[in-house]
Amino acid sequence: MIADRAAAQALDRADPLAEFRDRFLIDPAVTYLDGNSLGALTAATSARLGEVVRGEWGDRLIRSWNEGWTDLPTAVGDLIGAHLLGAAAGQVVVSDSTTVNFYKLLVAALDARPGRRTVLGDRRNFPTDRYVVDGVAESRGLRVGDVGADPLGGPTPDSVAASLDSDTAVVTLSHVDYRSAALADMASITALAHEAGALVLWDLSHSAGVVPVELDRSGVDLAVGCTYKYLNGGPGAPAFLYVRRELQLDLRQPIWGWFGQRDQFEMGPAYRPADGIERFLTGTPSVLGLRAVEASAALVVEAGIERIRAKSVALSSFLIDLFDHRVAGLGFSLGTQRDPERRGGHVTVHHPDAYRICRVLVDQEQIIPDFREPDGIRLGLSPLTTRFVDVWDAIDALARVVADGRHTTLGTTRLAVT
Amino acid sequence: MIADRAAAQALDRADPLAEFRDRFLIDPAVTYLDGNSLGALTAATSARLGEVVRGEWGDRLIRSWNEGWTDLPTAVGDLIGAHLLGAAAGQVVVSDSTTVNFYKLLVAALDARPGRRTVLGDRRNFPTDRYVVDGVAESRGLRVGDVGADPLGGPTPDSVAASLDSDTAVVTLSHVDYRSAALADMASITALAHEAGALVLWDLSHSAGVVPVELDRSGVDLAVGCTYKYLNGGPGAPAFLYVRRELQLDLRQPIWGWFGQRDQFEMGPAYRPADGIERFLTGTPSVLGLRAVEASAALVVEAGIERIRAKSVALSSFLIDLFDHRVAGLGFSLGTQRDPERRGGHVTVHHPDAYRICRVLVDQEQIIPDFREPDGIRLGLSPLTTRFVDVWDAIDALARVVADGRHTTLGTTRLAVT
Repeated sequence: MIADRAAAQALDRADPLAEFRDRFLIDPAVTYLDGNSLGALTAATSARLGEVVRGEWGDRLIRSWNEGWTDLPTAVGDLIGAHLLGAAAGQVVVSDSTTVNFYKLLVAALDARPGRRTVLGDRRNFPTDRYVVDGVAESRGLRVGDVGADPLGGPTPDSVAASLDSDTAVVTLSHVDYRSAALADMASITALAHEAGALVLWDLSHSAGVVPVELDRSGVDLAVGCTYKYLNGGPGAPAFLYVRRELQLDLRQPIWGWFGQRDQFEMGPAYRPADGIERFLTGTPSVLGLRAVEASAALVVEAGIERIRAKSVALSSFLIDLFDHRVAGLGFSLGTQRDPERRGGHVTVHHPDAYRICRVLVDQEQIIPDFREPDGIRLGLSPLTTRFVDVWDAIDALARVVADGRHTTLGTTRLAVT
Repeated sequence: MIADRAAAQALDRADPLAEFRDRFLIDPAVTYLDGNSLGALTAATSARLGEVVRGEWGDRLIRSWNEGWTDLPTAVGDLIGAHLLGAAAGQVVVSDSTTVNFYKLLVAALDARPGRRTVLGDRRNFPTDRYVVDGVAESRGLRVGDVGADPLGGPTPDSVAASLDSDTAVVTLSHVDYRSAALADMASITALAHEAGALVLWDLSHSAGVVPVELDRSGVDLAVGCTYKYLNGGPGAPAFLYVRRELQLDLRQPIWGWFGQRDQFEMGPAYRPADGIERFLTGTPSVLGLRAVEASAALVVEAGIERIRAKSVALSSFLIDLFDHRVAGLGFSLGTQRDPERRGGHVTVHHPDAYRICRVLVDQEQIIPDFREPDGIRLGLSPLTTRFVDVWDAIDALARVVADGRHTTLGTTRLAVT
């Protein structure tokens, strides 16, 4: 079916988003398939950071807090919310890490469901979510339930329904699984949780900016997510959190800080949380991080999430086609679902020698995938920067490396590939 | 005693740290006396951020995590710890905000003192610390005690001794008061708390980089602090936390995240905290923020904390002298102690019309102090950027503005001056 590299080049020529790649600062020597772990740098973000550092920080100094900085967590939150998360204004803020945001919302949700003793999660979920759940559960004496997600299919309405009961306080799942890319049915699962009287906390780290998300329409209570993946906000960029408007005043955010205070600069005696989403802020947010997210997310917004999703599906479908034709016979198995409606933006392939294959790709082929324990090679396809020819090159390299047995000449000592 | 501006200029010429100011990017038209709120930008930091953004992020992308990023929280922590905090390696990390760090350490300390039901603090402390204490106390049903600090003198060993009892789990105070600059006797207060069986959590936000701190020698248990003030790390730069080595393995950090995990990229089923200070990390740290702190703090380290402290005392003494001679008769009162051994790096003066005076200084005189409710004008003296002539100009302007009654022509509507 796929004749050669020229076929991939033809797909790139027909790609309506192709021009966006030119707006990133990309090393042309590298085939980067890890934009779902750390997104690439846009030229606008690089330039904007220089302006922010020299102008807003260096020249304007403290005055900049009154010239836009103070509102950044909500302004950037509204930008992402409106265009990428299906969230009306006043429900998303950007600040702190995904981990800290997850903690804040989990504790708030548990406090809102006193008497219920179970946090229902996914034992295959991303570590930070599981660890936060385990830590909070241990300290409060709660039970941690598991939806028993299928490794390929992820959590389904059926698996969630079978796990829910009247003791469930909170259901917490990833919308897109960080390994398999399984895409969960957010609306159905949320509705099931609500029927059982539980609140739902979604992690959107692997969906924001690549998969359309409809938080308001899906009736979601709470969500968190990362901005340094498909939103290209930069390493350790501040994360977002969403709290449905009707819940905001009823939830008690556990980390009371001066950015969550109603009249911050009164510095008054008592904490009086802000009336809206700002109450979920804590300390001083990272201005450089927020400005980078703002500039980078603007490009995602400009491209449009529907077009991004269309290209994302085309890229992953192309990858799976190539996989079937080129490498399926070489000890690989597909770790991502074939139905494009049920997967997010990346594709994972498994191989017993995945670690050494990754090392050869990185060190000898300048192709950068993501190794995931124990045997996963995660191929991130970030629609604004990944070309069809990148997919072709990656699969071609996988085929060549394994066919030659080149990876078997390496030692097995592990070096972290983030 | 102070004849004229030439006397200030002479002090600048004799200043051994004068050359450091040239290594900052400073608007020469502005007299900036708010470096204790947001420190200025060093040329090295501006350049370094450009390299980090284009090189480490843009070019190296995900590989940078293996090329230095992962160790940044501890590396920058060790740099600050060794040279500015009196902390041997392996006890300081930089990540998250001061608020979040304060929360983590407060909860960990309380868990380590089960049965004790009092958090002893200072009701005049910086809001975020008080708010975090109040929030945690409310959720755990604890009592919040107050050391009854004198507005000018701050918490003293006597006031702390009188407030401690066998119910005290944690004592939490600022080393330098954010309003009066009162400098607490860290070693004596820590020893008193230990005698009572309590742990101590110090906030060093207004001392780090301007006042020598001896955490190890003072037997301190826990500390947090800000890097965007005297360390010039940039707006919302990640904060530091300190945990005395002997306590680290006994404390339970409440926010279990993947950066606190022993083998982060195993992504294993259970949270196993790292063996050392890394267990107090949570989520992915801000790389841009850390690189900025690293570059900026390096300049503070190069200048040397003893020389910085000597200039700091000289600046604040000079300011108080000028205050006595020029403005004391104009409705002002001094809000900072005269004994240099008992104050940190800034000086607060009070005036019933402080807010409007600040506005005139900022809008008409290009002099930037910090207004602090209800009647404080906080004059931050950051030894690497503040000149004696800046102090002279500020006091001169205060005298002129108030003598002319210029501030009385303004409305009283408030605009936040951070």
